Amino acid sequence: MIQGRTWVFDQVPYIKSSAAVGGPFEAKGPLADDFDILHEDIWLGQDSFEKAEKVLMENACEYAIKKAGISKESIQFFLAGDLMNQVISSNFTARKLAVPYLGLFGACSTSMESLALGSLIVNSGFASHVLVATSSHNAAAEKQYRYPTEYGSQKPPTAQWTVTGAGAAVLSQEKTPEGIRVAAATIGRVVDMGISDPFNMGAAMAPAAVDTIEAHFRDLDLDENAYDLILTGDLGKIGHRIAADLLEKHGLKLSPDKFDDCGLMIYHESQPIQAGASGCACSACVTYGHVLNRMRKGELKKVMVVATGALLSPISYQQKESIPCIAHAVVLEKREGEE
Amino acid sequence: MIQGRTWVFDQVPYIKSSAAVGGPFEAKGPLADDFDILHEDIWLGQDSFEKAEKVLMENACEYAIKKAGISKESIQFFLAGDLMNQVISSNFTARKLAVPYLGLFGACSTSMESLALGSLIVNSGFASHVLVATSSHNAAAEKQYRYPTEYGSQKPPTAQWTVTGAGAAVLSQEKTPEGIRVAAATIGRVVDMGISDPFNMGAAMAPAAVDTIEAHFRDLDLDENAYDLILTGDLGKIGHRIAADLLEKHGLKLSPDKFDDCGLMIYHESQPIQAGASGCACSACVTYGHVLNRMRKGELKKVMVVATGALLSPISYQQKESIPCIAHAVVLEKREGEE
Repeated sequence: MIQGRTWVFDQVPYIKSSAAVGGPFEAKGPLADDFDILHEDIWLGQDSFEKAEKVLMENACEYAIKKAGISKESIQFFLAGDLMNQVISSNFTARKLAVPYLGLFGACSTSMESLALGSLIVNSGFASHVLVATSSHNAAAEKQYRYPTEYGSQKPPTAQWTVTGAGAAVLSQEKTPEGIRVAAATIGRVVDMGISDPFNMGAAMAPAAVDTIEAHFRDLDLDENAYDLILTGDLGKIGHRIAADLLEKHGLKLSPDKFDDCGLMIYHESQPIQAGASGCACSACVTYGHVLNRMRKGELKKVMVVATGALLSPISYQQKESIPCIAHAVVLEKREGEE
Repeated sequence: MIQGRTWVFDQVPYIKSSAAVGGPFEAKGPLADDFDILHEDIWLGQDSFEKAEKVLMENACEYAIKKAGISKESIQFFLAGDLMNQVISSNFTARKLAVPYLGLFGACSTSMESLALGSLIVNSGFASHVLVATSSHNAAAEKQYRYPTEYGSQKPPTAQWTVTGAGAAVLSQEKTPEGIRVAAATIGRVVDMGISDPFNMGAAMAPAAVDTIEAHFRDLDLDENAYDLILTGDLGKIGHRIAADLLEKHGLKLSPDKFDDCGLMIYHESQPIQAGASGCACSACVTYGHVLNRMRKGELKKVMVVATGALLSPISYQQKESIPCIAHAVVLEKREGEE
């Protein structure tokens, strides 16, 4: 069923399993225990950062499939994307998986874009099992989007730290004992407020997050108590504050304990992350690790994750374009004991 | 309904309208009359090739919406992708359209990936109207993937010429007088036979096309007479011959008048295109222009387009990776006079 631009999923899909993989920097963060694998080496034994990122995504996919207790062949479709040019991390993971593959690009919103589309496919009966995944690698992203890390270039306090990691989930038509399912998804529009500073993505993306959250609440006629937790993807300190302010100004006052940002959760403030974390893996790791673990324990029943993406490229930035941004929201719901 | 990895779409979506936009090189080709707009200037009045490509996609989208006779606001979702890093042509078109947007990446297979996913969304009732589009620009692609054209570097005869153009279509739940609908889609797996020469994409992609065509025929239990025409996306001379040979070897003999390649149709052989055409816009322009026009005239009733994509990046190639390839197939069917 569709309401406005929100897809409402009746009954299915259930999240059969999920996996989060991180690197050494993530291992030092407060959510370390929620990762399935934490690599000590940012190279992951590979000879390039791009190949290291591919291994992160392969790890997450293999682990999610293993935890689901199904065979690789049961995965009917693999939906994935990442930050690398031509989404090579996803393409090469798809080559290894050898299952039908749909490549996506939504920058850091890819986590929820893939979860939304994968859920729609399972919900409408066009698949029994779908695997969704995304990844990012700090050094690979720095090299491609900004400067090689070897330059040691300084960054302003508004900059964010790209997460080295990957997240994956298996979606299924079968009910699970945990009873966690995807209940709805709101697809974002491109919002561009004219910000052109690639070292201040949080501020650029905040209005897109607000646009999607407001559309979601309007589409489903909800009030501020609808969710136990609303998480933006990677707005960081500056963007999250802007989003909260804008929402309040527009009449939606979310209490601070119910409105947080994945980019403010994955690292300690003492880590040198400037304004917070970012990257496709930021919202993916926090959602597929920490959030789902809290839902499994029953600490959270209804959570909305609003993954934000900055859809620029180095070329569009060099050609003086401002930064087009987007946010896709997905609602996770625990329905234990229900039949 | 799903059979194997083929989505079978019952009744809807109908193709409400389509548009094809090209450049000066396409205007000299045999399919010129099937384009809606042909630009004389490869810069399209812009100051960069990337911005020119964006205008191509904007043109195609605006024209498709106009021909559909609906307002821009009736478009519920826009699904698009292109060859540029971070699919910026699609992102900036989505910014202009300001409708909910899902970015895709499947290299040159994006034409049918977007059509397949858009059709699934409409078919399952999660949208009434969806817009799908893709684009490519010869000079922008050369600059990004190979060498700036100013170098005048020579190419081997296996190389292909990236189409400058864009294609778009409006999918709808409403029956149209033309009665052309999307009947099925088969999603491709990544196939990589170890070819690593980026100047021989046709040979690299052929096995992926064969894999998808065979899966489609197997899933739906079809024989070689099932379609009036099967079109691969951009295999060119070499790849198309390989695909035909492989299919015949595997027991599926398609007669030459029923098995063709968009990359062999869009230009005259006398144009300096080496082994044929390529690019996202190749299969998109041929499908959304020429093929649909022939279907509208009743010359073709049932056509399958198998768009092929080479999922490499310059970085993956430089790091000595072979070329992972994919092909997505979509079946178009004309059901005139049916109720």
